Amino acid sequence: VSDNLGNKISTKGRYTRSDEVQSYLDATEKGDFRSLAKLLTWIERNGPEKSLSYKQLAAPPQVTFRVGITGPPGAGKSTLIGELIQQLRGRGLKVGVLAVDPSSPFSKGAILGDRIRYSEHFNDDGVFIRSVGTRGSLGGLSASSYLMLRAFDCAKFDIVLIETVGVGQTELEIINVADFVSVVLVPESGDSIQAMKAGLTEIADLFIVNKSDRPGAEGLKNELRATLELGENRKPVEIVSTIATQKNGIDELCEALLKAQKSFEPKSRLLPDRLKSEAKALLRWVVEDQIEAQLATIQDSASFVQKVTEFSRVISK
Amino acid sequence: VSDNLGNKISTKGRYTRSDEVQSYLDATEKGDFRSLAKLLTWIERNGPEKSLSYKQLAAPPQVTFRVGITGPPGAGKSTLIGELIQQLRGRGLKVGVLAVDPSSPFSKGAILGDRIRYSEHFNDDGVFIRSVGTRGSLGGLSASSYLMLRAFDCAKFDIVLIETVGVGQTELEIINVADFVSVVLVPESGDSIQAMKAGLTEIADLFIVNKSDRPGAEGLKNELRATLELGENRKPVEIVSTIATQKNGIDELCEALLKAQKSFEPKSRLLPDRLKSEAKALLRWVVEDQIEAQLATIQDSASFVQKVTEFSRVISK
Repeated sequence: VSDNLGNKISTKGRYTRSDEVQSYLDATEKGDFRSLAKLLTWIERNGPEKSLSYKQLAAPPQVTFRVGITGPPGAGKSTLIGELIQQLRGRGLKVGVLAVDPSSPFSKGAILGDRIRYSEHFNDDGVFIRSVGTRGSLGGLSASSYLMLRAFDCAKFDIVLIETVGVGQTELEIINVADFVSVVLVPESGDSIQAMKAGLTEIADLFIVNKSDRPGAEGLKNELRATLELGENRKPVEIVSTIATQKNGIDELCEALLKAQKSFEPKSRLLPDRLKSEAKALLRWVVEDQIEAQLATIQDSASFVQKVTEFSRVISK
Repeated sequence: VSDNLGNKISTKGRYTRSDEVQSYLDATEKGDFRSLAKLLTWIERNGPEKSLSYKQLAAPPQVTFRVGITGPPGAGKSTLIGELIQQLRGRGLKVGVLAVDPSSPFSKGAILGDRIRYSEHFNDDGVFIRSVGTRGSLGGLSASSYLMLRAFDCAKFDIVLIETVGVGQTELEIINVADFVSVVLVPESGDSIQAMKAGLTEIADLFIVNKSDRPGAEGLKNELRATLELGENRKPVEIVSTIATQKNGIDELCEALLKAQKSFEPKSRLLPDRLKSEAKALLRWVVEDQIEAQLATIQDSASFVQKVTEFSRVISK
């Protein structure tokens, strides 16, 4: 006897691996963060095929409003998120955070240094924080984060924050997972121009001008306003000023996010375009892993032809 | 009765599609450019699995020295290549050119405007020029160009030039197809810095400072020299000054390329690392096409789960 994952099920009812995953899911729905943590690790290791065989991950019974927070390195995103967590907790909200760290091309692991900045919340049982590396993915955002955020949905948070580092074009992928995109900028020369070039002004729902006591803050806001007016945006885009290190402007930022949450349509998650981009990210993940594994054994022209031909045939079926 | 491509072979010996491809290959080896052109179109449409079923494409009986010529838009690459063709023709050499054009994200076709600049060679029977779009490939260089260059090998040119436009990180892929990489820069502010950022100084075998009569040319050369000294390059890197519009410095450039050609090791094409990167590019091409096709029908959560699960299963086998 085996279940849909191919795991053998003991007829004596002993717990098998797949039962264990189901027990994590059940406990996650009851708010158990330790189970959520175990579930996320399992998802990262097992990938889309196995993960989506669980009803709750394939079609989450509820969805939580996801706020993307992106911007260039050094814009103060981590400090800002730390303060934001405190504000949201003060209002009695349960907060989930997924921090997507750019992987080092060498270690292939996540850069966790920044995370220390909001470690003060690690002992708060209303806050759950998880880091995930990008695994050198082409799209920037790790494909596993799509699945992990489905698990976050199961945990019934009031709000989920997704932190990504804006490097090149990769930050644009945030729009595929977040329901609302906030872009953090600082008044340094050229910051707004970089944002425009990178296409951030087209995906942003909100701009946060952090370190707004520095010279150039007004200039940056004016530039942003001018760009937004030119862009014929599909929606109004707010600009909020903050000084995260002084807890300045966090209240206003929090209000803006909660206002956006009220008009969030859970159905938007199920729009074909969004499902398609999620599917694309998941399949690329599986494929890249498989390609790496298959090609490792190429030694000469004959094995090259054999591998490419075989794999092409498999894929094209 | 069917051949290795699954095409039915008439027992009466009538030409079938696969015989036709074989006849293009045979004629290409005899130097027939019309057949080469037809072969390239066939390769682009049919992909790696079918292409590599032909002995000549799977393991070219000979390889031709390939010179990559890359650089930012506006550096004068096309003019330079036009002059270079003339020089090489003057020395009696048969020249093949593959121009990789960045595709417009809208038309998905190649931007051919620039090509007009070396159209004067279209009637020369010692020159063959082909453009290929990037098809919005993730890696920048179209995967089909890897296969097309295998067909170029069959045509027994004396030298093959590959033109790519340096945009972001994409130009680095040139090192996977070219045996020798030339980087064209112009003395405009920041050009050398951009080149360093983009990692060009690490892959270049030769720098061409074009428009070298403009102010800043000496400065650019000094910067390049300083960077190259710092970089502990694995090989000596020459710097050549040209003014392509005035046919200035082309002779020196030509000499540098022919000198490099003499020390070219055909075996380097068969190094496992090079075959692996080619295999990766080819498989990504097949996969991306297949993913697009598979995902087009996703309409709701159920079809999302079905498609991702099915395709993951196929790939992981």
